[in-house]
Amino acid sequence: AMAGSGWARAVRGLLLDVSGVLYDSGADGGVPIAGSAEAVRRIKASGLKLQLCTNETQATRESFVRKLRAMGFDISVAEVTAPAPAACRLLKERGLRPHLLVHDGLVPEFAEVDTTNPNCVVLGDAAENFTYGNLNEAFRLLIGMEKPVLISLGKGRYYKETDGLKLDVGAYMKALEYACDVQAEVVGKPAKRFFESALAELGVPPEQAIMIGDDIVNDVGGAQQCGMRALQVRTGKYRPSDENHPEVKPDAYVNNLAEAVDIILQQL
Amino acid sequence: AMAGSGWARAVRGLLLDVSGVLYDSGADGGVPIAGSAEAVRRIKASGLKLQLCTNETQATRESFVRKLRAMGFDISVAEVTAPAPAACRLLKERGLRPHLLVHDGLVPEFAEVDTTNPNCVVLGDAAENFTYGNLNEAFRLLIGMEKPVLISLGKGRYYKETDGLKLDVGAYMKALEYACDVQAEVVGKPAKRFFESALAELGVPPEQAIMIGDDIVNDVGGAQQCGMRALQVRTGKYRPSDENHPEVKPDAYVNNLAEAVDIILQQL
Repeated sequence: AMAGSGWARAVRGLLLDVSGVLYDSGADGGVPIAGSAEAVRRIKASGLKLQLCTNETQATRESFVRKLRAMGFDISVAEVTAPAPAACRLLKERGLRPHLLVHDGLVPEFAEVDTTNPNCVVLGDAAENFTYGNLNEAFRLLIGMEKPVLISLGKGRYYKETDGLKLDVGAYMKALEYACDVQAEVVGKPAKRFFESALAELGVPPEQAIMIGDDIVNDVGGAQQCGMRALQVRTGKYRPSDENHPEVKPDAYVNNLAEAVDIILQQL
Repeated sequence: AMAGSGWARAVRGLLLDVSGVLYDSGADGGVPIAGSAEAVRRIKASGLKLQLCTNETQATRESFVRKLRAMGFDISVAEVTAPAPAACRLLKERGLRPHLLVHDGLVPEFAEVDTTNPNCVVLGDAAENFTYGNLNEAFRLLIGMEKPVLISLGKGRYYKETDGLKLDVGAYMKALEYACDVQAEVVGKPAKRFFESALAELGVPPEQAIMIGDDIVNDVGGAQQCGMRALQVRTGKYRPSDENHPEVKPDAYVNNLAEAVDIILQQL
């Protein structure tokens, strides 16, 4: 049905989610999804622009790209839009000094940021750093502020690693929101401002871009809110029940990135 | 103002919250709040009925009462209404087999409950057991159920220990609710059914009972929803901003339990 509709003809650029689209993450560093590395090469050979748009907050972009390249993906650091650099810009604009509850691997992204005497909390996917002690520490800092400022790098519910599903940053965000009676500011998908940064880096307006992701709300819903079309892949965290989502309906489903690229390139 | 109103004249029984009213909890076992042990003795000497109504889920009632008695409180196990025994009744009624994410000290309350092949998750104030691994395990069990059943022993946001504020079970409940897109069933304050159990054990109808607590929502709001009057003490987790709460207004504020008892006994 999708191939027949021809609506991909006007497309000039693709935004790709990474985990669950290019590879499945895990304690072992993750494994590429079959056909995805070849699909990235075909996108580039076709002349379409490409930007990765990820909520990855366990590593700096540099080390993230090293991992992708080791898995066979032809990607450079400039082709990655990620929450931590966006958060650094926001902190600077507003004179905020964060307490960081993030993964050890992400800390270098904040090297230029003043973290003394914190006046906000930045929450990322801290994984093993989500300890009872660290959560209480972040909570106490927030509840002690006259007007608590909680900045969350994404609001995903969970993600899939090779050894099973894991709670994502959004679950811990909700815990702190409830305890402090505040609303977090989300930097990352599905925030409109974050997709707009990715489109700016892609150099293509929303109506000529397609988002491809495995997350019905944060990838598909967020991109559609920005005026893009969006496909959901049936890899990664995709679950069949996503196809009955009460609010979000992708422009099409595809089995995986390779199939998405097949269909889009046929229409060009 | 309260002493003058005389509305305590019809009172026949008191429900008391424990942590923050009788004592401040902490790693050292906690310290009694000045005048509270004497206040409990005066309540009993006056002929008023008394029941403790607690969301305490870090210990069995037996060990909880031992701790209170060691601090000088004249209390017996039958005078304590707590969430775990209420949850055990609910599990039995509905044929539910829980996975327990609770404090080690609470586990013996579930000794008679079948926990093989779990079909629900029971969440208590697990404190140090709120590890990243344990939270992921509870999450995976829930998300794997056709219709996830999450039973939460309370929904408090935080509480005060002698070494500072700690996130309470409600924060972790919100994390799992969000990740699994379910609504927890709360056993404990402020659930109406829980207050009704406490009133049944007190043997006094709601209009002749007063709840005294430090938690504006779970103690004061919950009791008022059941038709009781409710006082907020300015001890424990009380914060001055509670006095501007948008939804809940106690029948009166008192500095502490001793002052509440002074005023009530004057009116009898």
